[in-house]
Amino acid sequence: MSVKAPISADLIAEQNDAEISALESDYTALGAQLSRRGIDIDVLTKAAMNFAVAIPSWGVGTGGTRFARFPGIGEPRNIYEKLADCAVIQQLGRATPTVSLHIPWDKVDELSELREAASGYGLGFDAMNSNTFQDQDAQSQSYKFGSLSHSDAAVREQAVAHNLECIEIGQKLGSKALTVWIGDGTNFPGQQSFTRSFERYLSAMKSVYAGVPDDWKLFIEHKIFEPAFYSTVIQDWGSNYLAATELGPKASCLVDLGHHAPNVNIEMIVARLFQFGKLGGFHFNDSKYGDDDLDSGSINPYQLFLVFNELVDAERHAPEKFDPAYMLDQSHNVTDPIESLISSAIEVQRAYVQALLVDHSALAGYQDENDVMMANRTLKSAYNTDVSPILAMARQKAGGAIDPIVAFRKAGYRDAVGKQRPASKGSGGGIV
Amino acid sequence: MSVKAPISADLIAEQNDAEISALESDYTALGAQLSRRGIDIDVLTKAAMNFAVAIPSWGVGTGGTRFARFPGIGEPRNIYEKLADCAVIQQLGRATPTVSLHIPWDKVDELSELREAASGYGLGFDAMNSNTFQDQDAQSQSYKFGSLSHSDAAVREQAVAHNLECIEIGQKLGSKALTVWIGDGTNFPGQQSFTRSFERYLSAMKSVYAGVPDDWKLFIEHKIFEPAFYSTVIQDWGSNYLAATELGPKASCLVDLGHHAPNVNIEMIVARLFQFGKLGGFHFNDSKYGDDDLDSGSINPYQLFLVFNELVDAERHAPEKFDPAYMLDQSHNVTDPIESLISSAIEVQRAYVQALLVDHSALAGYQDENDVMMANRTLKSAYNTDVSPILAMARQKAGGAIDPIVAFRKAGYRDAVGKQRPASKGSGGGIV
Amino acid sequence: MSVKAPISADLIAEQNDAEISALESDYTALGAQLSRRGIDIDVLTKAAMNFAVAIPSWGVGTGGTRFARFPGIGEPRNIYEKLADCAVIQQLGRATPTVSLHIPWDKVDELSELREAASGYGLGFDAMNSNTFQDQDAQSQSYKFGSLSHSDAAVREQAVAHNLECIEIGQKLGSKALTVWIGDGTNFPGQQSFTRSFERYLSAMKSVYAGVPDDWKLFIEHKIFEPAFYSTVIQDWGSNYLAATELGPKASCLVDLGHHAPNVNIEMIVARLFQFGKLGGFHFNDSKYGDDDLDSGSINPYQLFLVFNELVDAERHAPEKFDPAYMLDQSHNVTDPIESLISSAIEVQRAYVQALLVDHSALAGYQDENDVMMANRTLKSAYNTDVSPILAMARQKAGGAIDPIVAFRKAGYRDAVGKQRPASKGSGGGIV
Amino acid sequence: MSVKAPISADLIAEQNDAEISALESDYTALGAQLSRRGIDIDVLTKAAMNFAVAIPSWGVGTGGTRFARFPGIGEPRNIYEKLADCAVIQQLGRATPTVSLHIPWDKVDELSELREAASGYGLGFDAMNSNTFQDQDAQSQSYKFGSLSHSDAAVREQAVAHNLECIEIGQKLGSKALTVWIGDGTNFPGQQSFTRSFERYLSAMKSVYAGVPDDWKLFIEHKIFEPAFYSTVIQDWGSNYLAATELGPKASCLVDLGHHAPNVNIEMIVARLFQFGKLGGFHFNDSKYGDDDLDSGSINPYQLFLVFNELVDAERHAPEKFDPAYMLDQSHNVTDPIESLISSAIEVQRAYVQALLVDHSALAGYQDENDVMMANRTLKSAYNTDVSPILAMARQKAGGAIDPIVAFRKAGYRDAVGKQRPASKGSGGGIV
Repeated sequence: MSVKAPISADLIAEQNDAEISALESDYTALGAQLSRRGIDIDVLTKAAMNFAVAIPSWGVGTGGTRFARFPGIGEPRNIYEKLADCAVIQQLGRATPTVSLHIPWDKVDELSELREAASGYGLGFDAMNSNTFQDQDAQSQSYKFGSLSHSDAAVREQAVAHNLECIEIGQKLGSKALTVWIGDGTNFPGQQSFTRSFERYLSAMKSVYAGVPDDWKLFIEHKIFEPAFYSTVIQDWGSNYLAATELGPKASCLVDLGHHAPNVNIEMIVARLFQFGKLGGFHFNDSKYGDDDLDSGSINPYQLFLVFNELVDAERHAPEKFDPAYMLDQSHNVTDPIESLISSAIEVQRAYVQALLVDHSALAGYQDENDVMMANRTLKSAYNTDVSPILAMARQKAGGAIDPIVAFRKAGYRDAVGKQRPASKGSGGGIV
Repeated sequence: MSVKAPISADLIAEQNDAEISALESDYTALGAQLSRRGIDIDVLTKAAMNFAVAIPSWGVGTGGTRFARFPGIGEPRNIYEKLADCAVIQQLGRATPTVSLHIPWDKVDELSELREAASGYGLGFDAMNSNTFQDQDAQSQSYKFGSLSHSDAAVREQAVAHNLECIEIGQKLGSKALTVWIGDGTNFPGQQSFTRSFERYLSAMKSVYAGVPDDWKLFIEHKIFEPAFYSTVIQDWGSNYLAATELGPKASCLVDLGHHAPNVNIEMIVARLFQFGKLGGFHFNDSKYGDDDLDSGSINPYQLFLVFNELVDAERHAPEKFDPAYMLDQSHNVTDPIESLISSAIEVQRAYVQALLVDHSALAGYQDENDVMMANRTLKSAYNTDVSPILAMARQKAGGAIDPIVAFRKAGYRDAVGKQRPASKGSGGGIV
Repeated sequence: MSVKAPISADLIAEQNDAEISALESDYTALGAQLSRRGIDIDVLTKAAMNFAVAIPSWGVGTGGTRFARFPGIGEPRNIYEKLADCAVIQQLGRATPTVSLHIPWDKVDELSELREAASGYGLGFDAMNSNTFQDQDAQSQSYKFGSLSHSDAAVREQAVAHNLECIEIGQKLGSKALTVWIGDGTNFPGQQSFTRSFERYLSAMKSVYAGVPDDWKLFIEHKIFEPAFYSTVIQDWGSNYLAATELGPKASCLVDLGHHAPNVNIEMIVARLFQFGKLGGFHFNDSKYGDDDLDSGSINPYQLFLVFNELVDAERHAPEKFDPAYMLDQSHNVTDPIESLISSAIEVQRAYVQALLVDHSALAGYQDENDVMMANRTLKSAYNTDVSPILAMARQKAGGAIDPIVAFRKAGYRDAVGKQRPASKGSGGGIV
Repeated sequence: MSVKAPISADLIAEQNDAEISALESDYTALGAQLSRRGIDIDVLTKAAMNFAVAIPSWGVGTGGTRFARFPGIGEPRNIYEKLADCAVIQQLGRATPTVSLHIPWDKVDELSELREAASGYGLGFDAMNSNTFQDQDAQSQSYKFGSLSHSDAAVREQAVAHNLECIEIGQKLGSKALTVWIGDGTNFPGQQSFTRSFERYLSAMKSVYAGVPDDWKLFIEHKIFEPAFYSTVIQDWGSNYLAATELGPKASCLVDLGHHAPNVNIEMIVARLFQFGKLGGFHFNDSKYGDDDLDSGSINPYQLFLVFNELVDAERHAPEKFDPAYMLDQSHNVTDPIESLISSAIEVQRAYVQALLVDHSALAGYQDENDVMMANRTLKSAYNTDVSPILAMARQKAGGAIDPIVAFRKAGYRDAVGKQRPASKGSGGGIV
C-alpha cells in the first residue's frame, strides 16, 4: 500500500536537487573531520534516520495564553485534518512517525476509520492523553476543585472512568501507553490537605493502573505550577517517583522540560529516574520562565544536548532497560505550527546526534581522574560540532526534504488548507 | 440622594449586633496595649476608614487559566451587573469605593447612564484600562505580533486610537487616569529587535500621552513575562522608568506585585520609583510562581506589609509628592469573586495599618547606629500586632459589616443573582 | 545540682518585674479572646514551654560570605566558650536546651569534660554534624573533588571514617543522631557522571549507616547548590528520599528551609516526607535568594507558619510516628549571634504556637466541601493572632526573660566576653 | 623590544605543526560553506584576531566558596606572579592582552616597575577595581555595615578616598577606567532605609566621579544579592542606570552575567543600556543558580551568543557610540585557572564570531514581516555554525597555539611554578 503524501514528492525532489550539491560538500567535509576524531559519519546518519519523536495532535493548532489566542490560517478542525498536518510534518522532516492523541478532543465514533486514516499516511499512534483538567459538556461532575485527587469520590470515579476509556480507545488504535497529567492542586494555603489529596490521588490511580494492559505503559507527568498556583499534587519528580513506585512496574515518570522550578538541573533528574528504573519519557519543549511551551531548543539548546547526553549514556550502560517515549509538547502561538513542529523535531534530533558524538570512554577516564577541564571539553567539542549536514542527509535519504521549511513554503500547503478550513474564533485544540 | 444598597442594611446591623461585644472587648484590649506603646488606636481606626483600594470590573467574574475556566454561579454578564457586585463589596467591606473599567469589555452606548448607575451605588470610577492584547471582532488590525510596538504603523495607530478612546470614555465617567499594559514581546530570540520595538513603543506612547488631559495620569505597567515568553517590551521597572521618563510628568510606573522575576525585592523597587518621582500606583495581588493573581496577602503577607512600610515612609517624608493609585488585580478561579475581593481589600488595609504602627523615628535611629536587631524588631513588632479589631471597627463605624464574609453569605446574594444570571461557558471577563 | 547561669538571675527577675504587669494584661486579653474561640491559653503556654529547638555550636560565631567576614566582639574561640554563649541563649529564651556539635571544629581531647561542661549549664547534645566539605590540616586525602561520592576509594574511605568518628564522639556525649551534609557535586557539565557519583555516595553511606547505633538516627540533608554550582549529589528531596530509603529505617531526610530552588513549596515537601516515613527534621533559617541563612522568620514568616501547620497536623494524625529534630542553622553576619539565636528560636516557637491555633476539624470540613475561602481563613485567623504574650509568659514561667534581647543587653554579657576573648581575624567557626 | 614569553615558542610551533594540517582542512571546508552563504571567512578570522577580553588579576588564583577553598598547585603569590600567568594565557590564546587590577590586593610600592613588568610581557592594564567589601588591616573604619552608602560619613569618606587612590594608581599604570562594585546592602528588612542608603551612595559616588579623569570611564556594577541577602544598594540595571545617569557622561553600567534574578533576559538589558547610552561593559562568566562565576559559556552558551548578537547589532547601528569594556570575572574552584581563562576567552570569542555570522539585513526583513520562524532561524543558523576553525586559525596567525590547553599542558608550566611557589592555605586572591 502506498502512503498518502500531502506534499508533492516531485516538489520535494526538485527542491532537494537544488540543495544536494552543497549538502554533499558539507557532509563530506564533516565526514572527514569526524573520521579524524574516529567517528564514522554514516553511523550517525543512520542513527538520525532511526530517531523518532511523536507529534501531539493538539500541537498542529495554534496555541494561546489565558489572555488571548490569535488563530492561524487553515487550522485543523478535527483529528482527521490534524492527521493531515502531521503527515506533512513527517513527510518533510522524517523524524515524527507517530501522533499522540488527546481525549476527548480527538474522540471520534469510528476508531477503525481513524486508524486507517493514520496508517494511510504512514502514521502510528503514540501515547494516549487523558483530560481531567477541563469540564466537558456532557460531564456530570466538575473538575473545578480537582479530579483524581478530588475530595468527592464521585469526581474521582468519573476521572478514573475517563482514563480507562482512553485506554480502551488507545487499544483500538494501536497505542501502547497512557499519559496522565492532572491540573489538581490548590490556589490557597489550607485549600486542601497535601497528604489527603495525595492519598486520594494514589487510590484513584491504582484503579487506573488496574486497567492498564500488560503490554502498556502508564506515564505520570509532574509540573510545579499552573493551573494551580499554590500547590500541585504531582509537583515534582519526587512526588512523581513516589506515585510511580506505589503503582507498580508499568508506571513511570514523564519529564516535561518546562515543568520544573527555576534553575533546577533537569538532566540530573533524568539520570536519577533512569537509575531507579522510572524514566518513562519526555515532553520536549523549551522555556525561559515557566511552562512556556516554546519550540524545542529555541531558548537553551545546550540543556537539550545535556539531556540527550544522559540518554545516550543510559542506553549505553543499560540498553535492555532503555525505552523512553519521546514527544513534542509545545504551544505555537506566533508561528505556523507545522513549521514549528518540523523545526523542533530537528532540534531534538540535533541534540541526540550531538550527544552521540561524545567520546564516552574518554569522558569516563577524565571523570575518574577529576580532569574537569578535559571532561567538560569532551562534551563541548561534541556540542560545538555542527551536525546539520547529518540531519539533512538523514532526511534526504529517508525521502524527506533537505530544507523542510523551505519546501513546506514552496508547496503552498498552508494557503491551500486555509481555503478549505475556515478560521475559528474559539480556543481550539491548540491550548495546552 | 440615598445610596442603593444591594444587601439589606438590617441584615448587616443584626449581624453586627451579634459580633459587636466581642469586637469591643478585643478593640479595648488592643487599644490598651497600643496606648502603652504610645499609639492612639482611634487614629489608626480613622486611617483605616480613609483607606481605599479600587476594584477592577473584571475581578467580579471568575478567572481562569489557558487550560480551563470553571464558571461560578451568577457571574455578572455586563458592566451593570459588575457594578452591582462591586456595590456589595463596598457595602460590606467599606474599603473599595471605586471601580476600574476595562475597555472594550465594559463599553456601553450610554456613558451617562453608566455614570449614574455607579453613583447610585455610591461608587466612582478609578483608572481606565485599555486592551491591546486581544483582538476584537470589529478590529481591522491584529495584535498577534504586538500593538503599540508592532512593526506595522497601521497596528500601532489602531492601538493609539484605542487608548485615546479609553481616555475619552473615562473623561465622561469621571476617571482621572489611564493604565496601559501591553502584552507586546516575543517568543523567540530574533523575533524582534529589542531596540526598534522599544523605539516604536515610545513613539506610539507619545501619541497617547499627547491625548492625556492635564489633570490625568498615565500609568505604565511592567511585567517580566506572559503572554510573551522570551522577551517583553516593558519587562521590568527599569524599562518602565525609562518609558515614563521619556513621556513626561503625567506618566508614572505601576507596580503589580506578581510581575517580577523570582526573588526580586519589590519593596525596594517601590522605594526607588518614589525617590525618583515615578511611583504611579499598584495592582495588588499575591503570587508564588509567576503572575498567579492570587488574593492579596494569601501567599506572602509580610511582603505586602513591607511594601506598605515603604509607602507610609514615603508619605511621611514627602506627603506633597505622595499620591499612588491602589487597585486590586486578581484572578479568582476557585473562590467567590465577591468574597475574595472583600477579603483582599481587608488584607491590603491590614498591611497599611500594620505599617502605620512602625515607630519610624526609633527605626531611623537604629538604622543610623546599625543596630540591625532592633531595627528589624521595630518592623516585626508592628507586623506581629493583630490589627483585626481596628479593621473590623473601621468597617462597623463606616456602616459595613464586622465580618463581611459571614454577612455576605447570610444575605444570600450569590444564590439570588444565580437565579437571575444564567451560567456562561465563555471565557467571560474574568480572565486577566 | 544547680545549673550554672551566665546571666545574673536577679537581673532577669528585676527586668521581668518591670514588664510583668503589661504582659499579664495582654495575656489576659488574649486569653479572653482565645476562650471565645474555644481555646485554652494555658494549654498553649504549656506547649510553648515544651517546645525546643537546638542551637548549632557554630551559630554563636559571626558568619561571613566568600567575600568577607566581619568579626564581632567577644566571639567564642572554642567549644567551651560556645557552650557558655549557648547557655546564655537558653537561660534567657528557654527554648533551646541542646547544642549540636560540628566535628572537627568542636573536637576536644576530653569528651567527659565537655559533657560535664554542657550539663553544668543544663545543656544536652543534639545531632552530631560531620564535615567532609573542607580539608583539615592532618588529612591525607583532599575533598576538593568530593568526599563520600569521590571517584577515588581512598577519599571515600576517609570520609566514611570521619563520619564513624563523629558517631563515636557523639555516643560519648549523649547525642542520638548524625547529620550528613556533603558539598559533593560539580561545577561543569561532564565533570562527573550523575549516576556513578550517586552509586558511590550510596555505597559509602551504607558503610556509615552500618555504624549508626540502633537507637540513633541518620539525617541526610539536601541542597540545590553551593558549594557546587552545576550539580549537587543530594540536590533535592527526591534524591534525599532515594538515599534514605536505600539506607534503611534509621535514615531520614533533613529539610533546611534555604536549600530549595526558587518558588518551591517547602511545606508540601514536609508533608510528603512525613507521609512516606522519611521526615527526619529541620535546619531552620530564612532566605530570599539562596542558602542565605538569615534569621528564622525574618523574610517569610508565613512560610514558617505553614511548615508548622504541616507538623502540627502530622503530629495529630500519627503521633507515634512524629519525632522530627529541630535545629537552627543560620549565619549571623551583621547581628550579635546570641541575640539572633534567641530571637530566631522565638520566631520558630511563634510559628508553632500559631499553628496550634488552627482549628483542624473545621479546616478538614472546609476542605471536604471545597469551601476554599473558609479553609484559607481558618489558617489566616490563626496566623494573624498575636501570640507574643503566650511566648513571653512561657519564658517567664520557665525562668527566662520576658524580653530576652533587652535583658541580654542589660546584662552586659557581650562587653564582658569581649574583654576575655580577643578578636580573631580568621574565618572562625561562623562560616556555615 | 622583544616580548618576554613564559612558554617556549618552539614548543608552540611544534605543537601547531602537528595540528595545522587538520585545521587547514576544516578551515577550508568552513570557508567554502561560508562562501556559499556570502561570507568571507578571512574577514571573520581578522575580526577574531582583533577581539580582546581582559583578564582579572585575581582570576589566576584558585577561587573558593564561603565553605572552603581548595588551593591549586603553584598559585601566584603576588601581582608579578599573576602577571606571569596572564602572560601565559595571552601567549597561548591571543585574546587577552590586558589585565584588570584589584586594589589593595595588587598594590605595590613601585608602580613604574609593575608597569614595566606588564609591558615586558606585552600586557596592558584594563579597568582598576576598588575594594570596599572587605576590611584591610590598616583601615580605620569597618565596612561591616556598608561603604559608600554607610550611615556614618567617616566610612563613606574612607571608601571615597580608596576609590580615588585606585584612580591615582591606575593613572600611573595606563589604565583608563575604574570599576566600582560594592557589597553594600542589608540582611534584614528595616536594617537600612532604601532611599537614604541610595542618597548616601549617590553623594559619595559624586565625590568619586569628581576625581575621574576626563579620558577615563567609571563603571558601576549591579548585583541582585550576595554578600547582602535581603537588599543590595545597586541591585539591578534600573538602580545602576539611575546612578550612572545622576553621575554624568563618564559613568556607565557594567553587566556581570551572573548578577541577575532567575529567568531575567540579560541580552535585553544589554540592548536597553546601549540604547540609552549607558552600556559600559561586561564581566563575563556563566551561572546556573546565582553569582556562580563559572567559566564563560559553560552553562548556557546560547545566552552568550545572544548577548553578542546585541553587541554586534549595536556596533553596526551606532559604531561611534560603541565602546564596551570586556573582562572575564570567574572563580576557578576546580580547574587550573590558566586553563579556564584561556578556554573562557575562546568561548567569549566564539560567541562574538558566531554573532558576526548573523545576516542582519535578512533578520531585519523577517522582523518587519513578523516571519518569526525565519527570524529565529537566522540566529540559529549562525549559532549552529562551528566556528572553531576560525578561532584556531586566528590564534595560529597571531602566534598563539592552535590548541592552547594541550600546548599549556605540554609546556609543563604548572609543574614548574608549583616548584617555585609554595602552597598557600589562606583565602588567596582567588575569592571573588
